[in-house]
Amino acid sequence: MANFTRREMFGLMGGIAGGCAVTALAGPALAADAAKAPAGPEGRFVQTGGDFSWKPKPIDAGTCVDVAHAGFWHKGYGCGYGVLYSIVGLMGEKYGAPYKDFPFSMMEFGKSGISEWGGTCGALLGGAATLALFYPRAKRDAMIFELFRWYETTALPIYAPKPGTTKVEGPLPSSVSDSILCHVSVGKWCAASKFDARSTERSERCARITADVAKKTLEIIQAEMAGAFKPVLQKSEVAEKCTAKGCHGENLKEWKHSGLKGKMDCTPCHTGSNAVQDKRQDHF
Amino acid sequence: MANFTRREMFGLMGGIAGGCAVTALAGPALAADAAKAPAGPEGRFVQTGGDFSWKPKPIDAGTCVDVAHAGFWHKGYGCGYGVLYSIVGLMGEKYGAPYKDFPFSMMEFGKSGISEWGGTCGALLGGAATLALFYPRAKRDAMIFELFRWYETTALPIYAPKPGTTKVEGPLPSSVSDSILCHVSVGKWCAASKFDARSTERSERCARITADVAKKTLEIIQAEMAGAFKPVLQKSEVAEKCTAKGCHGENLKEWKHSGLKGKMDCTPCHTGSNAVQDKRQDHF
Repeated sequence: MANFTRREMFGLMGGIAGGCAVTALAGPALAADAAKAPAGPEGRFVQTGGDFSWKPKPIDAGTCVDVAHAGFWHKGYGCGYGVLYSIVGLMGEKYGAPYKDFPFSMMEFGKSGISEWGGTCGALLGGAATLALFYPRAKRDAMIFELFRWYETTALPIYAPKPGTTKVEGPLPSSVSDSILCHVSVGKWCAASKFDARSTERSERCARITADVAKKTLEIIQAEMAGAFKPVLQKSEVAEKCTAKGCHGENLKEWKHSGLKGKMDCTPCHTGSNAVQDKRQDHF
Repeated sequence: MANFTRREMFGLMGGIAGGCAVTALAGPALAADAAKAPAGPEGRFVQTGGDFSWKPKPIDAGTCVDVAHAGFWHKGYGCGYGVLYSIVGLMGEKYGAPYKDFPFSMMEFGKSGISEWGGTCGALLGGAATLALFYPRAKRDAMIFELFRWYETTALPIYAPKPGTTKVEGPLPSSVSDSILCHVSVGKWCAASKFDARSTERSERCARITADVAKKTLEIIQAEMAGAFKPVLQKSEVAEKCTAKGCHGENLKEWKHSGLKGKMDCTPCHTGSNAVQDKRQDHF
């Protein structure tokens, strides 16, 4: 009842009251459909060729991973650029427009968790953007889940650059990130490898992960092109228990208002580890 | 010396040893320049019109914010789409190519912290992508810092939709996120407002933030077009003390190998708050 009192307070009764129970249960998709059509002139939100009109075409997987790795180092454009160019750029090299006309340098913004902020890993950003170029949400959400969950749970990097193609040759340590966030992923690798986050070895680690993410993204695209992509991975046990079927999901108690946004594994930030204790006081 | 032993172990001595001190201190930019040029056919990494060749043109700020808000709701494409379309799309409507040929629907992947994962806020993703379409890193990094830090520290949403243009009319509560992450930003707003994360009110809150982020992004672009954008905001005290000038930055002790990736405020995850304690045991 507190919720309704609040709604009254904000003057939301009337048009919305009849539908609020349905939209609250059905989530953002239905809520979006229920919104009024946006006002605007004819042509607004119209897209050349139509929405999601770019279709993927075959490229060589071996070339793709090498180009992704090289793309990371190319002018320092980094991981997001490397992944997207290695797929969309290769299609452009082989098939021309529209792929060749993508403004690739834009993808530099993915670098270091979006412009050095340490948020979502830029390689994953590049993979997600590539999938979103081709596939609408109904197909894409499962694809991105597969890519992101694979990244959370796999010891990376895997890719081995060809001799003479990079500054840091030979094997590098690998680590499991448990997280899609650059800050956490890089931090765990630095702790495991003892290399500094600003070292060339760390850059090379990310260049190789750029190749790994490009490979996984292309595999998903190729599976879809060959018939239908079928997801394999499952949510983390914690995410499943706490969110999908837990108090932050299906079993949400209305008065708690504690549904949440996200599919990330809850573990890195919500298990009281040393990493999240008060670092301002004394953390060693 | 442990670091050199490791380098020897991975066979990195020789070409890299002479330059490692410089690259470790100088960070990713120099490290990238130092890498060998990637192999590939002529035309690889070449871009139609040249890198960062799209130039911003004047659009109406009032229309921009309304279109950003409407773009959020348009087919449920969400925040990243709303922000980018409200600037690049409006340039397309007014000036045609190349702006009109951007594959806008791709930006749907930003929704809910990149495809529902709760990572970097998709509105910020849209703003960062828009700035990266026009400006290379030397100009862009300060712009994105201003946009992201403003988002961390400002009570949002601010935008008030025109009557009759949206499902949830009237004022909504606002909150300061302290974070660029969707999961944290939405969670704090839900805690402050008592609305569920899956409610139409929460969607409307994000639609309005889409307008707010579009406004801020356009202001940055307009400032640069009028002369030169000048950043105003500073790093959080914690980020400055711990990273820029602290043990994770300038004062990094080599043996700790604890430099880090990120410009985020450390507070939400590293102050031992109740939110990050062990949620698997008992958190109420």
